[in-house]
Amino acid sequence: MGTEVTRILSEAKRQGRAVLTEIESKEVLKAYGIPVRTGQVATDPESAAEIAGKLGYPVVMKIVSPDIPHKSDVGGVRVNLGSPEAVRSAFIDIVRKARLEKPKADIQGLLIYQMVPEGVELVIGATFSRQFGHAVMFGLGGILVEAAMDVVFRLVPLTREDSLRMIQEIRGRKILGNFRGKPAANVNAVADIIEKLSALVTDHPEILEVDMNPVIASAAGAIVVDARMALGEPKKIADTIYSSEEIVTGMKRIFSPAGIAIIGASGDPSKLGYSTVKNIIDGGYKGKIYPINPKADEILGLKCYRSVHEIPGKVDVAVIVIPAKNVADAVTALGEKGVAGAIVISSGFAEIGNDDLQRELVATATKSRVRILGPNIFGLYYTPANLCATFCTPYTEKGPTALSCQSGGVGMAIIGYSRSNRMGVSAIVGVGNKCDVDEDDLIEFFGQDQNTKVIAMHVEDIKDGVAFVRAAGKISRQKPIIALKAGATALGERAAFSHTGALAGDDRIYSAAFAKAGIVRVSNLEDLLDCARSLGKMPAPKGENVLIVTGAGGLGVLLADACSKHQLELMQLEKDLDQAFRKFIPPFGATGNPVDITGGEPPETYEATIRLALEDDRIDALILGYWHTLITPPMAFAETVIRAKKAAESVKAPKPIVASLSGDVEVERAASLLETHGVPAFAYSSEKAVVVLGALYRWARMAGRIRPRS
Amino acid sequence: MGTEVTRILSEAKRQGRAVLTEIESKEVLKAYGIPVRTGQVATDPESAAEIAGKLGYPVVMKIVSPDIPHKSDVGGVRVNLGSPEAVRSAFIDIVRKARLEKPKADIQGLLIYQMVPEGVELVIGATFSRQFGHAVMFGLGGILVEAAMDVVFRLVPLTREDSLRMIQEIRGRKILGNFRGKPAANVNAVADIIEKLSALVTDHPEILEVDMNPVIASAAGAIVVDARMALGEPKKIADTIYSSEEIVTGMKRIFSPAGIAIIGASGDPSKLGYSTVKNIIDGGYKGKIYPINPKADEILGLKCYRSVHEIPGKVDVAVIVIPAKNVADAVTALGEKGVAGAIVISSGFAEIGNDDLQRELVATATKSRVRILGPNIFGLYYTPANLCATFCTPYTEKGPTALSCQSGGVGMAIIGYSRSNRMGVSAIVGVGNKCDVDEDDLIEFFGQDQNTKVIAMHVEDIKDGVAFVRAAGKISRQKPIIALKAGATALGERAAFSHTGALAGDDRIYSAAFAKAGIVRVSNLEDLLDCARSLGKMPAPKGENVLIVTGAGGLGVLLADACSKHQLELMQLEKDLDQAFRKFIPPFGATGNPVDITGGEPPETYEATIRLALEDDRIDALILGYWHTLITPPMAFAETVIRAKKAAESVKAPKPIVASLSGDVEVERAASLLETHGVPAFAYSSEKAVVVLGALYRWARMAGRIRPRS
Repeated sequence: MGTEVTRILSEAKRQGRAVLTEIESKEVLKAYGIPVRTGQVATDPESAAEIAGKLGYPVVMKIVSPDIPHKSDVGGVRVNLGSPEAVRSAFIDIVRKARLEKPKADIQGLLIYQMVPEGVELVIGATFSRQFGHAVMFGLGGILVEAAMDVVFRLVPLTREDSLRMIQEIRGRKILGNFRGKPAANVNAVADIIEKLSALVTDHPEILEVDMNPVIASAAGAIVVDARMALGEPKKIADTIYSSEEIVTGMKRIFSPAGIAIIGASGDPSKLGYSTVKNIIDGGYKGKIYPINPKADEILGLKCYRSVHEIPGKVDVAVIVIPAKNVADAVTALGEKGVAGAIVISSGFAEIGNDDLQRELVATATKSRVRILGPNIFGLYYTPANLCATFCTPYTEKGPTALSCQSGGVGMAIIGYSRSNRMGVSAIVGVGNKCDVDEDDLIEFFGQDQNTKVIAMHVEDIKDGVAFVRAAGKISRQKPIIALKAGATALGERAAFSHTGALAGDDRIYSAAFAKAGIVRVSNLEDLLDCARSLGKMPAPKGENVLIVTGAGGLGVLLADACSKHQLELMQLEKDLDQAFRKFIPPFGATGNPVDITGGEPPETYEATIRLALEDDRIDALILGYWHTLITPPMAFAETVIRAKKAAESVKAPKPIVASLSGDVEVERAASLLETHGVPAFAYSSEKAVVVLGALYRWARMAGRIRPRS
Repeated sequence: MGTEVTRILSEAKRQGRAVLTEIESKEVLKAYGIPVRTGQVATDPESAAEIAGKLGYPVVMKIVSPDIPHKSDVGGVRVNLGSPEAVRSAFIDIVRKARLEKPKADIQGLLIYQMVPEGVELVIGATFSRQFGHAVMFGLGGILVEAAMDVVFRLVPLTREDSLRMIQEIRGRKILGNFRGKPAANVNAVADIIEKLSALVTDHPEILEVDMNPVIASAAGAIVVDARMALGEPKKIADTIYSSEEIVTGMKRIFSPAGIAIIGASGDPSKLGYSTVKNIIDGGYKGKIYPINPKADEILGLKCYRSVHEIPGKVDVAVIVIPAKNVADAVTALGEKGVAGAIVISSGFAEIGNDDLQRELVATATKSRVRILGPNIFGLYYTPANLCATFCTPYTEKGPTALSCQSGGVGMAIIGYSRSNRMGVSAIVGVGNKCDVDEDDLIEFFGQDQNTKVIAMHVEDIKDGVAFVRAAGKISRQKPIIALKAGATALGERAAFSHTGALAGDDRIYSAAFAKAGIVRVSNLEDLLDCARSLGKMPAPKGENVLIVTGAGGLGVLLADACSKHQLELMQLEKDLDQAFRKFIPPFGATGNPVDITGGEPPETYEATIRLALEDDRIDALILGYWHTLITPPMAFAETVIRAKKAAESVKAPKPIVASLSGDVEVERAASLLETHGVPAFAYSSEKAVVVLGALYRWARMAGRIRPRS
């Protein structure tokens, strides 16, 4: 099939055309087994009527011209023509209007088809971005493409399962089902087109954009009615020069150095070079610390060196806090000393327009084989090595979360939130201008790091999308990766050749990339931080059955609302299970899910219902709603939950549990206690507990942890 | 026009029909000046062909039968018939299929129309609910009604402005505009139909449901192609027996009593009757306190009475904490004493299935003219009267916010959040089972209360929607009302006669009611509480021009994302204004909006840019993004903002300001300081500041505070 496609593409290239005609586009699709509606071209009104008679009325007529990509804009499309007279007069009309609007257009004739059977109008397309390569789009078609913007993108290559999932993701998916007497559309036929389009652009990446609009789907199948394609050079950004092994080897030395040098160390407490040395000491770092300053003999009680060359022992990483213009030379010296990486705190590079200085730094680093973190960052925390290589205050609370951020402002919020919530972290890393080390390097490292169970990232842009998706796609099978991508709405829609391209705002492509990579995307800083703090505490759920147990009916209803918003499924309780719960709760407590134990109950009722929920194999995850009462005060509730959890986990595998606590200020202490025992807990909130459980589920589904429905 | 409609409705009633035929429905619409596509009925294939010939091909044919409401379900609709032969064979087909599917249906013939011109398919309908009366629906029509569910509801009566706003609210509104060569649809013609439908159901409330689907809108106008109506008894829940003046008079006595009795007062510290008396004392209440307990002489140092009759002075309100079965008798006694209201803390009524006991209480209260708050509540706080009439702990922080809640669980979260955030409140009220006093009574009272500037409510259901919308619609012009309506997703869609009815899940009708009443709806407890705490601090904005000033570029982008999500408009800066900002910031700071002053700037730069923003008349509201740096530490930032605000407010009217603070834990203290100076401020968050400003704008728009665009 490649041969025919190659022939058509070569011919277009030979003619210097970047756009294929409808006929060519359909030939390409046909070669990949995609069903297309073909027709015949008429060059005069009489032959048009003749062709229409042969095809059968009513017919559709469309102008054929490589110079007119948007046919309907110039009145170049007429539908539902029912007689030879109508066809003849439409021919004359269309040509006259097109000449008027586009006098120089090469009009090759009018294409005539029989009208397609009734069905649902869909759009399927493909587009190309330099970061991520090709993405395929699926959505509602016809006039609704741009009006409803109900479309979903996914990076290629796509499996049948991916394609079917895309179809399920549009808001208007119901339109494809069996409703109001219309039989359901053949979803497999639609998925087949999506999959084949993915294969087409994978095999022929020079096809940069494809629009199939509309694709008509009915019970009988799916057929492409109109199609367009644009060609070009599929130039991707891909600048990875290190292998996966080299990355990990380098990163291990950077995060857990045997020796660390501070270039620009200072004895003056007002300087960053002072606080950086002090933080490394105060953070409890156990390796060798080598301050570098040609003008000092000792800094903070440590022997000071004039240059890295003078250091007697091995140096794995250096922190750089000298003026920007001197950084490249320092990196050269590091290379000579065999240092693996530099944490460049210094600013004054691309972030203030000094692009040349940054390019010079990159060139030097590449040549010297020294990895660069930054420049323009607050530094790096890695608690397993007790390393606080930063000018900010130390942070030493150990835990399973690794965080990275592209913005220093966001970085400071991470530190403040962590401290305020005593969030245990393995690492906090600023990537800043990320002239070298970027998210894929960090993901490779954190992926193999036994101290890290969850990765949370603030991302403004991804440089090397290919490496990013590859690294994240691998690691996200093992550990949740959460990302906050800023700029979701900054750019708006692009002007583009195709509908698909126009709809592929950066944001949709990023979402497609995250979906491909198994990354959980969140939309604000608070959700990133709450998820970062919570996801490492919980085991992966094994199924979709979520249960709410609540002491406050009102809170239960709000939690149920939140579940619906975050795609969590409140399981239907089978009769025996419902009755088992009923045994513990007053007769006026609410039946079903949420299980409303009512507000007047003692800790024993919480304990019995929680244990039942944790020990019954049909229940996969538990959301607790607590109401502060005299009979069950906050700390008694927390202790009860912890006891029930321990008891259940001695006989059954652990399940994710989250809690929402409603009450006076004592609930804050109860929430903290729950947190330290592996139960993410939130006071004065009806949604946060569900946000973090929802994020855990999104990850678990992508990572294939959820058992398929029976 | 009423006459013709009355005739048709009477005729249907006489025949015992609840459903009008398409022809009747269209006659009714025509009488109200709504353009409809009419046709002619054929009773045999030959006359069908004849009528089609007269109307002109192609035509549409539809079955006419009062027994077949969903015509397409039985193959009763055929479109695009282009010849006499096609019409004749379609006639035979349709009748045969209908007979097969519905053998008993009364088939009156086939209606024939000419096909309508191309245009956008819309749906316009009306539905009726017992709480709120009629609501009109507008949305995308045809098959998309149920597939895309892109519809909006609004309670009648509707003005032209309301109708135009509804059209703007659907996601797919772009479909009505001028795009891809299709001229824009005549939106005024669409609004005209919406408005006239509103008049129709207002004049003839027995029309319970209307479906006009599709309505075809084109540049030429809008025309109803198909229409259906159902009739019934428009029975509304409306149980208000008190006038607005009576409500306020009674509520004033309840909230600011000269004397308060506690029925069930106790000297036993383990009893609610003890903590209630103690809280009233500890809260600092200055009026007379009368404990009632037949078995005690003195409680907590206060003289105790055997019954209310024994009390020498005036009693305005009583708190009741005795067993449920004795409450009605106590209320009778209160009536005799001339007490205005009872705060019934006692539980054991409808919430545990004792509906009879609650009905008895209501009957007694109505007869005695005693207003009942509750039963089954924690009580009432009203800080202007230093009144803590509750068994919970006292809360005395005075401020502009009045809160009410239907769930005790949510009530406890209000108290905890308030204490934790030092939220100033005028009142916190539990309405519990709300057997009498409900949200409309509270809105009437808080509306006229000088101590209350913002009203926040947790609502599970509204009993008397008519009174609620009337009261809220009046008060929301003056003060923001925020509501958290639980159960948004609990009920799902209803089975109903019409599309409109099916889509009118309780939740959409509640949204319509809130929109009509000018109420800002939020979707979770945290947003309710954050808005409750923030909205009373800020003046109403005067226009849509929002500006972000940020010290962290990354945070600025996240805030901009949040603005887009919450319908806030980041203004375009005119050249002179942009240049004015540029004077204060480094050359590499970002241009436009957000104004990125960059992270290395001292407090002076924040001060200069904030003052410029507050003093330039083109800017209506300000969002601040702060980044914790050594040169501008958190408290310095807070003090700077406060100084700039004061200076600007000495020369210009105040504007709303919100702040998002990113940094180490000191930012929490800085945020508190800002709060006390009228700047809602949030740490470690990129969205909350925008959530509360967005809520303020939603209110200001509905209350007509925003100046129209020039």
